[in-house]
Parts: sequence; structure tokens; C-alpha cells
Amino acid sequence: MMNRKKAAPTPPMGWNSWDCYGAGVSEQALLQNAAFLQEHLLPYGWKYVVCDIQWYEPAAADTRYHPFADLCMDEYSRLLPAPNRFPSAADGKGFAPIAEKIHDMGLLFGIHILRGIPRQAVHRNTSLLGTAQKARDIASAYSLCPWNSDMYGVDMSREGAQAYYDSLFELYASWGVDFVKVDDICNTEYKPAEPYSAKEEIEAIRRAIDRCGREMVLSLSPGPAPLEQGWHLSANADMWRLTGDFWDEWEKLDDMFERCARWYPFSGSGCWPDCDMLPLGRLCVTDRRHGERLCRLTRDEQKTMMNLWCIFRSPLMLGAATEHMDEFTLSLLTNGQVLRVNQEGKNQRPVRHTGDEAVWQSFLPDGMAVALFNRSDKERRLSLAAGELGLDAFPAATDLWSGERILPHKNALSLSLAPHGSVMLFLPNMQE
Amino acid sequence: MMNRKKAAPTPPMGWNSWDCYGAGVSEQALLQNAAFLQEHLLPYGWKYVVCDIQWYEPAAADTRYHPFADLCMDEYSRLLPAPNRFPSAADGKGFAPIAEKIHDMGLLFGIHILRGIPRQAVHRNTSLLGTAQKARDIASAYSLCPWNSDMYGVDMSREGAQAYYDSLFELYASWGVDFVKVDDICNTEYKPAEPYSAKEEIEAIRRAIDRCGREMVLSLSPGPAPLEQGWHLSANADMWRLTGDFWDEWEKLDDMFERCARWYPFSGSGCWPDCDMLPLGRLCVTDRRHGERLCRLTRDEQKTMMNLWCIFRSPLMLGAATEHMDEFTLSLLTNGQVLRVNQEGKNQRPVRHTGDEAVWQSFLPDGMAVALFNRSDKERRLSLAAGELGLDAFPAATDLWSGERILPHKNALSLSLAPHGSVMLFLPNMQE
Amino acid sequence: MMNRKKAAPTPPMGWNSWDCYGAGVSEQALLQNAAFLQEHLLPYGWKYVVCDIQWYEPAAADTRYHPFADLCMDEYSRLLPAPNRFPSAADGKGFAPIAEKIHDMGLLFGIHILRGIPRQAVHRNTSLLGTAQKARDIASAYSLCPWNSDMYGVDMSREGAQAYYDSLFELYASWGVDFVKVDDICNTEYKPAEPYSAKEEIEAIRRAIDRCGREMVLSLSPGPAPLEQGWHLSANADMWRLTGDFWDEWEKLDDMFERCARWYPFSGSGCWPDCDMLPLGRLCVTDRRHGERLCRLTRDEQKTMMNLWCIFRSPLMLGAATEHMDEFTLSLLTNGQVLRVNQEGKNQRPVRHTGDEAVWQSFLPDGMAVALFNRSDKERRLSLAAGELGLDAFPAATDLWSGERILPHKNALSLSLAPHGSVMLFLPNMQE
Amino acid sequence: MMNRKKAAPTPPMGWNSWDCYGAGVSEQALLQNAAFLQEHLLPYGWKYVVCDIQWYEPAAADTRYHPFADLCMDEYSRLLPAPNRFPSAADGKGFAPIAEKIHDMGLLFGIHILRGIPRQAVHRNTSLLGTAQKARDIASAYSLCPWNSDMYGVDMSREGAQAYYDSLFELYASWGVDFVKVDDICNTEYKPAEPYSAKEEIEAIRRAIDRCGREMVLSLSPGPAPLEQGWHLSANADMWRLTGDFWDEWEKLDDMFERCARWYPFSGSGCWPDCDMLPLGRLCVTDRRHGERLCRLTRDEQKTMMNLWCIFRSPLMLGAATEHMDEFTLSLLTNGQVLRVNQEGKNQRPVRHTGDEAVWQSFLPDGMAVALFNRSDKERRLSLAAGELGLDAFPAATDLWSGERILPHKNALSLSLAPHGSVMLFLPNMQE
Repeated sequence: MMNRKKAAPTPPMGWNSWDCYGAGVSEQALLQNAAFLQEHLLPYGWKYVVCDIQWYEPAAADTRYHPFADLCMDEYSRLLPAPNRFPSAADGKGFAPIAEKIHDMGLLFGIHILRGIPRQAVHRNTSLLGTAQKARDIASAYSLCPWNSDMYGVDMSREGAQAYYDSLFELYASWGVDFVKVDDICNTEYKPAEPYSAKEEIEAIRRAIDRCGREMVLSLSPGPAPLEQGWHLSANADMWRLTGDFWDEWEKLDDMFERCARWYPFSGSGCWPDCDMLPLGRLCVTDRRHGERLCRLTRDEQKTMMNLWCIFRSPLMLGAATEHMDEFTLSLLTNGQVLRVNQEGKNQRPVRHTGDEAVWQSFLPDGMAVALFNRSDKERRLSLAAGELGLDAFPAATDLWSGERILPHKNALSLSLAPHGSVMLFLPNMQE
Repeated sequence: MMNRKKAAPTPPMGWNSWDCYGAGVSEQALLQNAAFLQEHLLPYGWKYVVCDIQWYEPAAADTRYHPFADLCMDEYSRLLPAPNRFPSAADGKGFAPIAEKIHDMGLLFGIHILRGIPRQAVHRNTSLLGTAQKARDIASAYSLCPWNSDMYGVDMSREGAQAYYDSLFELYASWGVDFVKVDDICNTEYKPAEPYSAKEEIEAIRRAIDRCGREMVLSLSPGPAPLEQGWHLSANADMWRLTGDFWDEWEKLDDMFERCARWYPFSGSGCWPDCDMLPLGRLCVTDRRHGERLCRLTRDEQKTMMNLWCIFRSPLMLGAATEHMDEFTLSLLTNGQVLRVNQEGKNQRPVRHTGDEAVWQSFLPDGMAVALFNRSDKERRLSLAAGELGLDAFPAATDLWSGERILPHKNALSLSLAPHGSVMLFLPNMQE
Repeated sequence: MMNRKKAAPTPPMGWNSWDCYGAGVSEQALLQNAAFLQEHLLPYGWKYVVCDIQWYEPAAADTRYHPFADLCMDEYSRLLPAPNRFPSAADGKGFAPIAEKIHDMGLLFGIHILRGIPRQAVHRNTSLLGTAQKARDIASAYSLCPWNSDMYGVDMSREGAQAYYDSLFELYASWGVDFVKVDDICNTEYKPAEPYSAKEEIEAIRRAIDRCGREMVLSLSPGPAPLEQGWHLSANADMWRLTGDFWDEWEKLDDMFERCARWYPFSGSGCWPDCDMLPLGRLCVTDRRHGERLCRLTRDEQKTMMNLWCIFRSPLMLGAATEHMDEFTLSLLTNGQVLRVNQEGKNQRPVRHTGDEAVWQSFLPDGMAVALFNRSDKERRLSLAAGELGLDAFPAATDLWSGERILPHKNALSLSLAPHGSVMLFLPNMQE
Repeated sequence: MMNRKKAAPTPPMGWNSWDCYGAGVSEQALLQNAAFLQEHLLPYGWKYVVCDIQWYEPAAADTRYHPFADLCMDEYSRLLPAPNRFPSAADGKGFAPIAEKIHDMGLLFGIHILRGIPRQAVHRNTSLLGTAQKARDIASAYSLCPWNSDMYGVDMSREGAQAYYDSLFELYASWGVDFVKVDDICNTEYKPAEPYSAKEEIEAIRRAIDRCGREMVLSLSPGPAPLEQGWHLSANADMWRLTGDFWDEWEKLDDMFERCARWYPFSGSGCWPDCDMLPLGRLCVTDRRHGERLCRLTRDEQKTMMNLWCIFRSPLMLGAATEHMDEFTLSLLTNGQVLRVNQEGKNQRPVRHTGDEAVWQSFLPDGMAVALFNRSDKERRLSLAAGELGLDAFPAATDLWSGERILPHKNALSLSLAPHGSVMLFLPNMQE
């Protein structure tokens, strides 16, 4: 199981609809953002276009859920895209037409699902595909998502339970889905008394993907995933979340250093602990209460976020509404040398980790990437000895954002960093 | 609120269907047991006949629940007795005909409900009485009973929520209900992270009873109720449970001493912390897996149970299927002097409480009741000094079960008690 | 045990040195405050003069402790008053001379101790009185006070352990001690994993007092005491704390309403759940960092504190440095009618208890005391129906602070209360 | 810090006195076991001879501790070997003579210490080396080892605290110590409310070792170490414990599979999560209550233990009293091919992990080691597909214990394993 063929040999890069559209994304919005991706970001590796939560809810329009809403569903208890929001899905075509358009752009297509079976299927007791059991037979009456009323969990000890999950992924494969973000399946905060209680459903989804005949990236959400399940997560999923939903707040960004320092040994070889979407640029465009906003992180903080996500090798999923993207935001996403650290780094790890500072290193074929972070609220000078990186001597380093050349002094680097600021350096291998 | 007129000036005494019929009690069984009560036990104060859980579930027949079962319900989302099980309830007459028969016997009638609104009402979005809101508008999508799938909790912050509860108790009042056992409303074990989360629903039910025009005893279940909510419980309910379901096991009986030692100061003045039903005689007559059984407690243990329930002033609700009741069981229920301790005691409290022994006292107009308990597994001699009871000297005592006269020796009593055994003594007031 | 003769038939009233002198009280300060008590407060019932923590530490001068300080100790491992701070204690006379002076004033004398045996006794392995065992034999190497390094706990399973405690109280009895506040013995916050771990030491101290030949009030500290141990506390102690140290902050005062609503049934018959000292007037006179201060509560809040402590029947221990007491503070302590509610009330309890309001009642021979509290930050009108107090109709009420007569309107009282304000009313019994 | 030069490039192998001598090891016993090591085990890599707890306690003789015992100590508050037990330590020579003898055998020498400063030093307030502060100035009055009364923790925020630790390791370096097992420093079970509270002391000891001028392996004890501190442990220590004390019980051995499955990514590059000593052969020779015993694990279980420790790459510290070692035990310790998996494996990890089975793999330059484990209580057939190991096809495998050749069938291995049994296979690289 551990050595299954991995669907994501490097950290997945792409775009996700949640941060900008909430539960209310539309076909038009998906394709518009896909077009932007194709034109501006695909050359840098951004290729997944992921449609987030509640595409099956006709009335979903923003960040709010409607409790007990009536959902679009086929005769086999499987949710379908709401045709009023995704017109090409009419006549039971599902996401196939959209996936096809996205594939034609050279991109890949992903969807979000909540684990489980629709509550409406259970109360109507509808059929399942490939089994004589019906919806009530496999539902767990007491297993709920704690923030959305669409689903009941599936009791995997019941006959027909695996058949149901198999039928889901068979459908998604027929649509051409390349990436599935499964939600309400992996956290320790919502249900501290039942940590990792969806373990069997994770395994069932793994099996369903392996059987569906199409390669799909499996992304688990939300976090924090339990560290002591690192092996099980590695064995079953391609990426999983370190935290609850990440947003554009320094406090959450600062906390991510703690999470990365716990999870770094589990990253690599096709398994990607996930720092969550990058809330950059235009966000929350469907938020009716507060309205659209721009990323609230300072530029230094945004760069710090990119540096941490890249050197940690987190998946990179852009959360912005891409239309009218400003130059600075675009520049953060198109620095090939920094992205190479994300895609090609090896044995990335902290070499220093305190409440005020962090230093990470990662190994590239031709040198070493080193990121220095100032977590404090004040400007701060960081000094770094060659030995701390395992080096005998420092080569001249390059700042991968500014291109500047940085010379060591007495076999140490010393840099002044803005509050919440950071640098990403490249140190070439020295000739022996 | 604290000084509302109390519906139960003394601990309620009666019979409940759960221990013998589970979820599968029928009209016939109710009336048969009521007839026994009238003939044999009513003279001793046993007067409530309580129909326990799922009288609205046509297929309920034993101790098991059917997840997502279809329930009998009126147009206002209110559950109704299943006519196949309660024939007199046909044509929308509900429990009125049964209540009338029971009243005619000189008895009182009680029902069990689960807090909340039927899940099926919510998913069908049916109407409510007295409000334009509908079932979905007041349901809490995340508030579940942890062992039965019939209901969603009601979110009392919603418009129409109180109207719904008012409509329930209006219906029960119209049926002639005298006692309501509300379940899934009061415990700390099932949801340790949300202790007493149904607080607002308790208050809503209190209001609904006060408004319904009929006096009803309000019994909260299951336990353990949270001790720190003693005031709130006293202010809103007439009785509430100290533990989870009590059964005929010494371990549970022994544990009840711990609970009683915590709760005794909250008992009295119309508020009755509740040790749960008395699982005596024939039990579990509908249990398909294990079949009917007789109470598994030894005779000493059964007497210990009666002594503790009586001196603590717990409600006394018989759990037996009364038909063919044996002599010993009947004798436990018809000792007027012991029952007087339950009904008329005052300031009952432990005077000694260790892992091996317990001594309780309670004050009667003409003397003092004193119960001595041997909690250990071996025969044990208990000695009791007059001072420990607050007495200067011991009068001659009477054993209320045997009638025997017990003389003190050197101002102390000394008694040998069988393993798990006990005595209930009466000490007359001494002439001054 | 429960019916032992009670040393405090009504809530103890007096003065304690902690709030004003910390660990640094002196003989002079004790006697000076005693003199004030005698002159101004004794007529109202304030009679205990209690010397708080570390009277055995020569260098103690303020609120700080000196870790591992050398302590004054007799040959039997018993701590003695430091003669440099208590000159009359020289030559082994201990507190006897001070107690005598205080008794001569018509007052009673109390001391503070920490449970356990001095760490210095253990490491020096000194002798014990009345047993061949030595200090090391009875100490528990892992039972520490979490904020003071003077003591190890005593392991009551060891031979000699009870003899040690007996020897302590024999000494205190010989000094003439009337009140002992035992610290580090009763809380759930410092050691949540070991709740009530000093249970055996509480019992040992109870026994030692019963044997010492002198009546002493036993006060346990700090809190919060565990509610589920209410019976054990009642059986062994005369008063015990509801909270950690109380100080002159509204937040702590507001929280006391929650604690009182939990503990009220345990109060009465010589057992007094304790709201802690009254931090009125001049406080912290030995505090070297912040200096002396006046009570930071507003006058309304101070009155609210008095009303709550009085109607709840808490012990009343004044924390002020009494010299130069202002008129207002003195007036709070000398209202005989309000103090009568504290000393003579019966069945005191909340009748309303929400986050914004509280209403308490208590029964006096000639009428009822009713306190109305505004817990909110805004002026607030409270309305109270006669039925809520269990009355059929309201009599004219008297405000016990202003003497004002308050007339009901349509069988209800309605009063406007300042933020954090309150009233204490007296409602005379109505002629039948 | 992360890249400091590592003292243990491969998992340390050696012998420790705890399992056989408890706190009562002597010079004679140390040297006798060292001689056995030199003769029989050194050729296989076993080289550390570690003297475990309380070598400074003159009266220590078995597995019990004497609370508050008087300890051998120098003028600078540093503990010294008790000369009555270690005669060569007389005249302040400490462990230097023993270390020299052990070095002369070609072995390395280790000692055990408890973090902190002797309580007796604190209560006597003795001096420290290299600072004017004294013992009381640096001790933490509330930081205790929960099972041994010798020490107080050191408060690293105090002046002189680092100097004290520096003085300890300076002394140990002067003795010739190569390995230090620091106890009471790394667990989450004893103090769940203060997890990893000795973090600063761990860092202080790291600094003291780095400064002492001698390379020493730093081993932290007891466990379970907190998984979320994996980075900090890696940065500061060479090995740390996964569990509390391991003993010869199947339940503990079975549980070790869970721990290994959590910690495997942190193992390698000079950091060795530690499964604890191997309780093989003659154990507990000083146990006065139960007497000496032989390892209680079955032979299958003993082999399973060796296989798990080896493939996980745990340190290997023998717990046996080596004299009269039986042939089977010796054979477990001298299988060079199995030990090579421990010393040279790379990227070791579980590929299957359930309650009944475990399969691990590890990579060697010339092939792959694969261990199959039957955790169940019954004989069990395990089947393993080539793909599960990341192989396209199976080569013929060799059983490293029996030497037997095992042929795959249809590209899968299938083996029957005894209850609690296991095999360690070697799969040679296939020619391309």
C-alpha cells in the first residue's frame, strides 16, 4: 500500500475556488480562472483547476450553507453539479464537459466532495449502484460533518458501503476528474473525542480510486491531521492538511512554522503535508457580508508565505480570483527559481526553529536552498554559521527574489530582515 | 422560577415500560401492568404508569432501534402513537383513550419523549403549529441524540422554536398526560465536550409545561446530570438522573452510593435527583437476543437497592413486567414503613461514606430512619455511636423489614451485615 | 462524623492578615488590627484575628516567598513563630502570649498552616513527637505545594504520620489557637490530574483537632474545592473555599455568582462554603512592587460583594489594614441588619440566575431577605413577581442599606440597579 | 544546531546495567559484563557499557530507591560514585579508573544521570563550580522527578544554571565518559499537564556536551517522547525513547509496533528513536522481592523483538546479566546479517500496519530487507505482493535467521508465521 504508484510525484500546483467564491462558484468562473491559469501560470507548473464545495447545491451563492438544502442527485444517491450553476452539466452530463474544456487547455480538473452519503438520500432511502442495499443501509446516523448538513458518514462495516464509494469514483473517472479534495475526513479539532474517526472511509476512498481506472490525486481536508497517523496518511493519501482553514492573517501564518516543524519528515516521495491554499490577490468575491477584499498580508508576509510553502514543499493551490491580478501577486507566482525549490527540493527541514526565527534548508542537485525567516514583530538581524547548515564554508549566495549576491563574512551570513520578513537563498555546491 | 408550584411534592412512585418492554411496549401491555398496579401497588402510593421510548415507531418491537425508521407523525411535525401498537390511538386520538382508562383506575399517565424535532419532519420540511416557520427553520443540523436517529435537536434561538415545544405539550395536555420523561437532554458522558448543551431546550420545555394548562411532572434523562447544574435542574425539572441507565448489576448499585453522596443536598422540596428505575422481578421480556430474565441482584442486594432509593428519597419507578410477580418482589414494594422513609423523610444524608460502608440518616416527625450498608464483598460488622447520628443516646431501634427490635450496647449499635447487605432502622424520638 | 459538634454554628467573622500584609505580618500589626476590631467591629460579630502564611519565616516581609528559606522549627519538626517578627514568641513560647492578649480583648485567635512537614525537617531528618519515626519516614517526596517550597506533604499510610499531625494541634491548642486555616489542601486547579489528593491529610487534621482538647474552626484553602466532595468537606471541615484567591476585581466578583449557585445547598448547619476574604479598604501595604492601594472595586461593587457574601452565608473575613479606615468601608462592615442575613438566614438560594441578573432569597424568623443583583455593565431594571419568591403577595419591603421603603406594584417589584449594583431587601412575614 | 556533528552515525549498540542490576550495580559487575562484551559481542558491534541510575547512592542495592537518601557529592554539588560500591572511585577519582579499564578493552563507557541538582545540595545550599551562585539559586522548587527523590530540576532562567551543567559534563569528560543517558527529561505520561517541560534543560545539556571537549552520545529517557517535538529532539539529542520502560511482556512488544509506525521518519542521520533495552537472558538479578528470572518472552517473541529493533534501526542496548548466557540468547545477538539491517539500513518504514500484521522494509546497498510480523495470537499466513514493496518482480529471498531460500509464487510471497512470530528476509537487487 505504501508503495502504490503516486499520483503526485511533486507537490501539486493549481487553483481552487474556495477562497474567492466560497460555496458559490459557477461554470463561468471556473473557466475564466482556468483561462488565466493557462495563459499566465501553466508555464510555471500551475495546472490543477479545483471546484470546491457544494457544486450540487442549486441555491449556493456565497460562503454560507443552507441547512437541509435540496441537492441535485442521481438515482444512485450520487450528487450531481447543479445545472443552474453549471449549465453544461444538464442532461446528466455532470462535470464531463467542463473537464474536457479544461483538459483542452492543458490543465487538469479537480473537485471537492464531503465524505459520506447525502442525508436526503438516506431519508428518501434511495438506491445505490452495484448493490441491492439502499442509502439507509450504509449511512451512519451519528456521523456528521460539524459545519455542513449535506451528508451522513458511511459506516464501512455495512454491506454496500464500499460499492457506494466505488460508484462515486467510477462516476468521477467517467467525468475526467484528476484531483479529489475530500472534506470532513481528517482533523483532530472538531471531534477531539473521536480523532481520525473517518479512518475506514479514507481507506475506502483509497480503494475506490485504485479501482476507478483513472489516476487521481487524493487530498484530505480539513486539518489539523493527527501527526501520529502520519504513516496511515502516507499510505492512503497524496496530500493532507496541517491546520484548519488557512487565511490571510499573520497569526495563522506564524503558526504554520510550528506545523511545518512537526511534519517535515513526512514530506516527499509523493506525499505532501499541505499548508492549504494561498490566499493572495482578490479574495471572497462572493462574500455578501464583508464584500470582496485584497489579501490582508503585507508584501513581506506574502513573500514569507511563499518561501515557507516552497521550502517545506507544500502543495501550492492559489486562492485568488485571478481576473485583474496585480503585478506583485503575479510575480509571487512566477518565480521559477523559488518554485524549483518547491518542486525539486529534497530533505527539506528546519535547522533553527524558535519563536522569533526560523531557518530552513533544502537540497537541490546543484546546491542548497536556505530560507531565513523573521517571525518577530521587529526588524531583526539573523546570523548563520556555515556549520549550522552542515557546510565547512559558505559560498556566495543568491537571493532568489532579488537576484542579489550575498557574501559571507568570516564564514557566516548575517542578514537584516523586516518584521515578518524572509529571504530565500541559493547556495551553489562548492567545487571540491 | 425556583419557587414555581411543584408537581411532585414527594418522590414520584410508579411503573415504567423500558426495563421490561424496551422500545416495544403495546397498549395491551400498558393496561395489563396498570391493572396490576391498581390492584396491588396503588394502595402503597405507586401511581404513575409511564410509556417509554418510541411509541410512534410502528416497527419497534424490542430493545433495538431501526435507524431512520418512518415514524407516525401529524401534520404539525408532532409524533403520534403507532396505531398498530396502540389501537385506541387510531383516527388521531393519540394517547387520550389510554390516559382516560388509566385515570379511571385512579392512576396517572406518563409518556417518554426525545428532545427535538423528528429528522423526517426536517427533511420533509413539514409545518409547525402556531407559527409560519417550518421544521427546517428550527432544527439544529448538528444536535443529535447519540443513540437514536429519530430526532434533531431544536435551536431555541430560532423563531418558531418555542411555538413547536408549546404545541407538543398542548397536545400532551389534551391527551391527559401527567408525567413526561424527556430523554437525550441531560448527561455529561455522551458529550463531554458539550456538557449540558440542551440547557435552552430544558428551559423551553419548562415554559411549555407551565403554559399547557395541565400539571405534569418533568423527568430528565439520561444521566449523569452535571452536579454543577444542580440549581438549574432544580429550577426547571422535578426529577433528573444521577447516572446512565441503571440495571441489575451490583457494580452499578455500588456506584450509586457515590452518586447519592454527591446529590443529597439537592433532594427535597419537590426536586428529586433520580436513581432510575428499579429493575426487579421479570425483566427484558421483549429482548430477542437474551430473552426474558429475572432480576440478577441477590435478595440482599435488592433490599439494599430499596433501602438506598428510599432513604435517599429517589423517585421509585418499577421496571418489572408485573404479571406473575413473585412474593419476595412484591414484599419489597409494599413495606409501608420503608416507603414512608422515601415519602416523608427530611434532611436525608450520609453520616458515613467509605468504599466499604455507608450509613445514612433521615428525619421523620416521630423519629429517625437510619440505614446501614455493607458495600464490601464480605460479611461485615458495622458499629455506630450515638454521636455520629447527632444523638446523645440510642433508643431501642426497629428493623423496618424484619420488625425486629435492636438494642444498643454502651450507647452504640453493632450489627453484622451480609455481603452487599443492609438494614433500615427506625429510631423513635426520645422523650425529653 | 457528619454529626460532630460544629465549631462554627454560624459563618465565622473576623480579620485575616493576608490581603494587607502578605507573608510579612508582625506581632505589632496583628495586635494593632486586633485593637481596631475590638473597638469598632466586635460589637457586630467580627471576632477572629487570623495570622496568615509563613509566620515561621524570619525573612518574610512582603508578598514574596524565598525558596528554600531556613525556617524556625522546634526539635519535633514543628514550625514556630519567628521571634524577630513576633518578639513575644521568644524562648519557645510560640503564639501563646499573642493569643492571650487577643483573648483578653474578647477576640479569638487563628493561624494559617500549610499541610505537610517542612522540607528542611525531612532533609535534616529531625525527630517527631510521640513516635520513634523521623521526618523522612512520613514525608511524601512527590507531594508539593505548587507555589511555596516550605513543605512536603505527609503520607498518611506511614507509621507516625498521624502522630505528627496530632503533635501539631496539641501545640496549637497549648498556644490557645481557635481557628486554623490549612492551605494547599483543597483545590482542583493546581493539580487537575490529582483532584483532592490531600483527602487523607484532611481526615488526619480532623482527627487531630478532635483529639487536641480545644475547639478550633477548620478552614480549608485554597479553592476551588471540588463540588463532588461536598459531603466529605462537610464531614471534616467547617469552611472551604469556592475559588482561588479572591481579589478586588469585578471579574472575580462576577464569577462568584456562578460558584455560589453551585454550592448553596451545602451551606448551613455549621458548614460554610467560603467566598474568601473581603478585600476592602487599605490593601497590600507590604507590596514592594506596586505599593499599598485602596480597594479597586466601585462602591456599588463593594456593596454587591457584601450582599452576596451575606445572603450566601459565606464566612466574612476582612482583608483590610484597618488603621485609618474610611467611613464608607466601616459602614459596609457595621450594618447589623445585613449581617443578620449572614448570621441567621436559612435555606438561602438563588431564585434567578442568568449571566446578567441574580436574585437570591433567604429566610429569617420574621421575614425574608431578598437580594437583587445587576451583573451587567449597564443600568438595568429588574422585575420580580411575588410567585418567584413563593409568595402569594408582596408586602412592603425595606432596603436594608438605605432604610427606604419599597412598595410593590401589581404584585411585583421593579427596581433600577446601577451597573454591577444590587439591593438587599427585607420582606416582613405577612399576617395570615 | 540540526547539522551538528553526530556522535552516533549508526544506532548505538551496547549493554546497560538497569534490567539486571536495578539501582544496585557495582564496579565488579560492570567490569565482569564488560569482559563478556569484549569477548563475545564486540566483534558484532556491541561496544557501550552503561552504568545506570544511582551510582552515587551508597545504600542502593536493588531496584528500590531510598527516599531522601544521603548521596555522595563533591564540594560543587556534583554527585560522585559511591566508593563502597565502586572502590576505584575513592579519593575523588570518580569513574575515571573504570572508564580507563573499559577503554582498554576496546569498549566505550556510559553513565546515567537524572536531570537537575541534588535536593541535598539545595537544602545544604552548597557551592557550584564556575559561578558565585549556590545550589538554591538555580534549583526549581517545584520541578521533581516523579519516581525518585534525589533531584530538583534546574531553572535555566537563573544565573549559574548553565555553569552548573557545564561543570557536570566537564567532570564526565575528565572521567572519559562516552555516553550519557539523561533521565526524567523526556516523557509525556508522567506530567501530561507539562509536556516536555524540561525542554530548556535538554538544550542546556546539549550546550554542555558541545563545550566539554569530548564526544558523548546523548540519550534521553524515559519516554514516550512527544512526537510533535521530533525536530527539537533531533536537533539536541542522539537518541530518545518511544515508550516508558520496556520489559519482557508481549503487550509492550506489541505496542512497540504502534510507536515505530509513528516515529520511523525521524530515524536516520545520527538520530535514533529508541525502543529501549533488550530484556533478554538473565534479568533482575538484584530483585529482592521476585528474584532473578529469565526473559519471559517466547523464542518467537524474542526474535520478533530483534527483528523490529533491527529493521526500525533502534539503538540496541542489551539488558541481560551476561554471565552464563545461553546459546539461544547469544545467537540472537550475533547474527551479523540481521545486525547489518540495523546498522546500514536506509529509509526503513512500514509498508503494512494493522492490528494483526506488520510488514517493514529497509534499503541496503545490495538489496532490501523485509520483515514480516504476525502480531496476532494465532498462526497466520501473510501474503505480500511485489508491488507493495515497490518492486516489479520478486527475486528469491533469503531468511536471515535460518539461511533458507524463499521463492516467490506468481509474483508474491506467502509465509506462515507462528503466533507473535516473524521473519527477516533479504531480497537482493535484481540485475537490470
